[in-house]
Formats: sequence, structure tokens, C-alpha cells
Amino acid sequence: MAIDLRRSGLTAHLTGVDKNEAHTARAIDLGLVDEVLPLEDALANATVIFVATPVDSLTTLVPEILDRINENQIVLDVGSTKLPVLQATMNHPMRSRFIATHPMAGTEYSGPDAAIPGLFAGKCCVFCETEQSAADVSAVANELFTTLGMRIVQLSGTEHDLHVAYVSHISHIASFALALTVLEKEREENRIFELASGGFSSTVRLAKSNPDTWTPIFRQNRDHVLDVLDEFINTVSRFRTLLIKRDFQTFDQLIRHANDIRRIIG
Amino acid sequence: MAIDLRRSGLTAHLTGVDKNEAHTARAIDLGLVDEVLPLEDALANATVIFVATPVDSLTTLVPEILDRINENQIVLDVGSTKLPVLQATMNHPMRSRFIATHPMAGTEYSGPDAAIPGLFAGKCCVFCETEQSAADVSAVANELFTTLGMRIVQLSGTEHDLHVAYVSHISHIASFALALTVLEKEREENRIFELASGGFSSTVRLAKSNPDTWTPIFRQNRDHVLDVLDEFINTVSRFRTLLIKRDFQTFDQLIRHANDIRRIIG
Repeated sequence: MAIDLRRSGLTAHLTGVDKNEAHTARAIDLGLVDEVLPLEDALANATVIFVATPVDSLTTLVPEILDRINENQIVLDVGSTKLPVLQATMNHPMRSRFIATHPMAGTEYSGPDAAIPGLFAGKCCVFCETEQSAADVSAVANELFTTLGMRIVQLSGTEHDLHVAYVSHISHIASFALALTVLEKEREENRIFELASGGFSSTVRLAKSNPDTWTPIFRQNRDHVLDVLDEFINTVSRFRTLLIKRDFQTFDQLIRHANDIRRIIG
Repeated sequence: MAIDLRRSGLTAHLTGVDKNEAHTARAIDLGLVDEVLPLEDALANATVIFVATPVDSLTTLVPEILDRINENQIVLDVGSTKLPVLQATMNHPMRSRFIATHPMAGTEYSGPDAAIPGLFAGKCCVFCETEQSAADVSAVANELFTTLGMRIVQLSGTEHDLHVAYVSHISHIASFALALTVLEKEREENRIFELASGGFSSTVRLAKSNPDTWTPIFRQNRDHVLDVLDEFINTVSRFRTLLIKRDFQTFDQLIRHANDIRRIIG
């Protein structure tokens, strides 16, 4: 985000804040930020404050930041779950200076070295419950994410959290489980995984994701994820039953139906 | 394969055979083959015969081709399951002119328009039970796949079929099931899937795969796939149990363990 906002000319000066000193040093080396400051000092002069920490910290950190800003500053978070941060800020006197966003793009890598240009272009950014945000806050958020090339979608916090359980969180569990299944087999037998090909790599890619990011997401979105997970397990079990019964006609129909996913992912 | 073998200079003349007339016409338009002939005529002058049809047809087609070739010709198949074709050719008088191969690369697309250069470079090609093939047959197969940039791995048919259940077939079921779960939800609610992001697209990519290719693979590799599928369902269910118990410490450890997949897919 820093790379693309700077390139666009929209952002003149970027200040970084992070507990991890190796990451702050690297962010300066890479030119992602102009300076690194403690939170208090960084807040003093910021126009827009992006909060991009694991989602469990957002429920305390965003209210703390709102305690310290003035009426002209803007706070936005970019976490993957939205209901908890919306609830944590709901009655804050500075609520109107905050907007909850979810720019839906990322890779399985994290930290400053994972920053790549153009990541957000053509992707979707969800804004939640913008009626609680001041008009100028929404307008600036809109300009920022539009500059990154994103399409803005408005959803309630509940709608958002259910939908990301489908299109993001359950994909991660499928990948984690696939990785663990294969790794368990690898313990028994050597060499077989030199066979791992492109299809496998693609399906299992998300299994490389950072647990410090993802465990809090699953904690916060537990109920929605459990709903979707039950459906996913039932669907996988349906393939299992068809194999057991050798019902390859229905198996074929299920694959044909699954092919309809082309409508969604092109 | 045709694109890269022609570019390498190793292959001077390519003859195509296909029941689908739209595909044969398109293969000529695209320059994939120099001519299209009926099977009998194509066999008459071929040096090397590549059999690339759905795996259920290989068990009859490969023996039929072996019935018609002479002692100087070479037949290889490139199917995803190897035991059935190995068994179907086991006692054929021309068995030594055949080599069972599995170049482990592909995309979710099929037909002549899906042909892309460089697909096989850096990937793995499995040769099965080459002790049954004549030395010159193995040598030519080795030269062909090495020219494509592939690493050759030797496995028994049983080893191969078990291993591809892990690294290829189960990934497809996970993707099919993920696609069906999301499509079922989409029937109930509109618009949500404009949210589908890169992570989802990657995990669900294989769900676009052709059922004419894949149903026969699952029919042939049913027993191995069922073994692996049970382990996969157990692993997904483990994540479910941890969510139900809110045991996020173990959940976190499981993700950390899944991260080890980096060793395999880099």
C-alpha cells in the first residue's frame, strides 16, 4: 500500500510504527516509510492513520488511537474480520473519524520484504457501516483505495464476516489441512514429494500463511467459519461416499457443477 | 509438448489424431500439428506415438496400438494413473516397445487452445516400471522429456498411483468441494462473490478442471484416493473440533506445522 500510494503522488510522507525493530529497520531500507516513530509521536502529525495489526489487537488499539486524535484526523483499519472492531468502536466519541475497511488482497507472505507494487489493483475493498463515519472520512478512504485501483463494496459487518468465511477463511483451512495430510505422509516415506506439481502448489499455497495473522482471524470469525466448515466437510464427504459407492456418474456431475466456479473466478 | 518439441528441433513432423473434429482443425490452425490423420494412417509412419487420452481409454487403446506397430516404433502414454495401463499391457508381445510416463504438469484448461510453451520445464516426469521397456525405448523417452526440461523419476506403478493421490488427486477434490460450497451459498445470496480474492482463486483453480479427464482418473485411482481422502477429512475435522473447543493454541500450532509445506513447494 505504501509503495503504490507513494508512486501515485497522493502520499507525500509516510511514518511507520511497529514493535518489531527488525521490521522497522527493513521498512526504512526498502523505502517503504520515510521515518519510524513511537505511536504517540507518529499520531501527532498524521493525516491518515492506517492500522494493520493482527485482528485481535485492533479491538484495543483502534479505540486507543481514537482517544488520541483530533477532529481532523482519519483512522482506518485493514483487518480481515470487521464485526469485533466495529463493536469495539461503536460508542466511541470519535467514532465518526474511523472507517472499517478490508482491502481484499494479500499474499501468503508477511513482513516488509513481502511488500510488492500493484497488489491491490483490480481487487475489491469492503467498507463496513460507513454511515457511522464522517463524510470526509469516507471520501478520503474512497480516494485512497480508488487510487490503489480497487473497487469499493459496501457491506454490514455481519455480511462481511460471513462472506469472507466463504471466500477467504475456509480456503485457508482447506490449504492447511492439505499441507498437513501431505506432510504426515512425507514423514513415513521419503522423496515422494519431488512430484509436487503446479496444481498442488496452487491449492496448498495459503498453507504458508502466518499464524500470527491467521489464528486471531479464526478466533474472531469462529462462528461463521464453523458454519462454512460444516458445509465444506459435508461436500468433501459427498465425494467420499460417491467413491465408496463407485457412483462415477454423480461424481462426474458434481465436477461439472464445480466447473461453474468459472463464473466467479473467471 | 508439441510446441516445445518442435521448437527444440527434436521433432521434425507432428501428426495429430483426435475424434473431435473441432479440436483437430484448431490444432492445425495453431500449428500444433502438421497434419491430422485417422489412427491407422498416423501409426503407419510414426516414430514415437504419444497417447494422451482420458485414462479409462488407455487400457484398450494402448494394447490396440501395440497390436499395430512394428519393432522399431515407440509408444508412450502420458496419463495421470499408471497401474491400469501397466496391467493392460503387461503380457502384450510388444510390451517392450511401450513406456508408461506421467509428465507432471498441466493447467486446469484442456483442448488445443490450452497449449502453452514451457509448461513442462523444471517439472517432474515419472517413468514406471522401465525394466519392461526396451533400452532404446527408455532412451528415447528420456531424451524427449529431458528436452522439455523435465527431471525423470522412476517409480513402480503402485508407488506412483499412491503418490499422485496425495499431490494431485486430493487437491482436485479439495478444490471441487470448495467451489461447490461457495456456489451453493451463492444461490442463496447475490453479489457476495465479487469479494473472491487471489487466495480463493488459487485454492479453487483446479475446480475448473475437465470432468472428461478427471472422472476416469478417480475411477482408476479410487482406492488410493479414498485412503488419502479419509486422512484429509480427519485433518479438516481436527480444525473444526479445535474451533468448537476454542482451543486456539493448538489451532496456532497446527498452522505453524502446516507452514512446513514451504520445504516442499518452496
